[in-house]
Amino acid sequence: MTKPEWIAADWGTTNLRLWAMQGTEVLDSRQSDQGMGKLNPDDFAGVLADMTQGWGDAPVIACGMVGSRQGWIEAPYGPVPLAARPRLVQVPGQNVWIVCGVNQMDPPDVMRGEETQIAGLLAARPNFDGTICLPGTHTKWARISAGEIVSFQSFMTGEMFALLARQSVLRHTVGDPTDLGAFDAALNDALAQPHRAYGRLFQLRAGALLGDLSPETAGGRLSGSLIGWELAAAKPYWLGQEVCVIGAPALSALYARALSAQGVICTEGAAQATTLAGLYSAWTTLKEHA
Amino acid sequence: MTKPEWIAADWGTTNLRLWAMQGTEVLDSRQSDQGMGKLNPDDFAGVLADMTQGWGDAPVIACGMVGSRQGWIEAPYGPVPLAARPRLVQVPGQNVWIVCGVNQMDPPDVMRGEETQIAGLLAARPNFDGTICLPGTHTKWARISAGEIVSFQSFMTGEMFALLARQSVLRHTVGDPTDLGAFDAALNDALAQPHRAYGRLFQLRAGALLGDLSPETAGGRLSGSLIGWELAAAKPYWLGQEVCVIGAPALSALYARALSAQGVICTEGAAQATTLAGLYSAWTTLKEHA
Repeated sequence: MTKPEWIAADWGTTNLRLWAMQGTEVLDSRQSDQGMGKLNPDDFAGVLADMTQGWGDAPVIACGMVGSRQGWIEAPYGPVPLAARPRLVQVPGQNVWIVCGVNQMDPPDVMRGEETQIAGLLAARPNFDGTICLPGTHTKWARISAGEIVSFQSFMTGEMFALLARQSVLRHTVGDPTDLGAFDAALNDALAQPHRAYGRLFQLRAGALLGDLSPETAGGRLSGSLIGWELAAAKPYWLGQEVCVIGAPALSALYARALSAQGVICTEGAAQATTLAGLYSAWTTLKEHA
Repeated sequence: MTKPEWIAADWGTTNLRLWAMQGTEVLDSRQSDQGMGKLNPDDFAGVLADMTQGWGDAPVIACGMVGSRQGWIEAPYGPVPLAARPRLVQVPGQNVWIVCGVNQMDPPDVMRGEETQIAGLLAARPNFDGTICLPGTHTKWARISAGEIVSFQSFMTGEMFALLARQSVLRHTVGDPTDLGAFDAALNDALAQPHRAYGRLFQLRAGALLGDLSPETAGGRLSGSLIGWELAAAKPYWLGQEVCVIGAPALSALYARALSAQGVICTEGAAQATTLAGLYSAWTTLKEHA
């Protein structure tokens, strides 16, 4: 293999993903479960050296929770409104740069990792004016205009679904949200009457005990209710805006379906490619300033 | 000690509580963590014999998850509308009777254990016409009229608070809900605009990271939001009704505070005394039919 020109790293709480890069071309890739959550600050350098063996000593550009207070070093937040182009801090004594997160003081919010995907989308579409929706454990909605992140808001929908579906009284009742009819109906209910949908959560369990509610239907209803609440709360982000949804395919498809049903012009982007494009944008910034 | 006339048992998922009774008088009490969740059907008789040693062979009246499909024997649900006086099934070959749960087909709902507290309240106030609110892991609201349970609804508020406060990204941020000003403000927000309150959950974490949000204030906000959603959804149960709140003191006080702020006439009852009164009502029913 050609020695890479640079190394891209997506270093989150649970996983580490690495790519050996020549410009925008991926030469090789590796992955490990040594996420930030399992490591002490002293562990990061060793893990990175192990995982990049044979790739030479190219500079590493990393995004994600590796830059949090509990990570390798704290890469300070920049406050919105903020140019979407990535800002970097160097790990002292290392050929490693970490992308800084973004924060917002009022209402308070933070992102770390998603700013790199926003930069990736803007690298491909520099004149994008609209909203980026990044579904995940903590879904982010960001308003983008004139190359800047104007404002953003995070929702706990992904984590709520996981907690309710796997650890609550609903754990024997709720499966993957593959019943799209149930998803659509619950979404409309939650958008129109959020409080009534709250009163229907325990009924998923009761409906399975007393009737024939299937895991697919219960999963569709739970997912539709939570995404419905999120859409109701995030309305200022999507109403009258183009929305680009970037995330894992199955979850992104549910968000795109929900938004399209509201008449929103909606595009979808691939999460990993967008992250790589954002890290490449950071790498070019570093080269320009070297 | 006088040998008891009968034995009262509150046998839930996590705990077993036993009282040696002479009429309505408590002669002795015992408690264990051998709840239904830890036991197989064959285990119950032995656990009960161990725990009632020295109490003689008095009949046992038990309520709670001991009567569920996963319990000792299944004590079948009775459908609403239903007389509030407890119905019993005998465990075959045992001097043990279990109180039957209550269900509702549309919208689907179930209770098992709470029906005994409803019977206890009605034993003390036979002409009660209003709503009983039983805060807990799965809070129940039941409309009572003419000695009958007319309808009821369960909410996952207690379990949601526990999951979010102890297992989510909010776990380092949220403490006990002792900041009552924060509770009141979040309650009003959630009642008036449930969807907007959903968008403020992650902000508890961001507020603690970026500012000086205390665990007490974050706990008050989270509890106020969840109880606010519940009150919004349960409005047909409390609007224009007298509400009697029966549950653990700290949690019941929050519900009573929230209801009083809506102008509801609200009384509070002691959970254990009400359970015992319901089991006594079941015991007298058994004696009458013996």
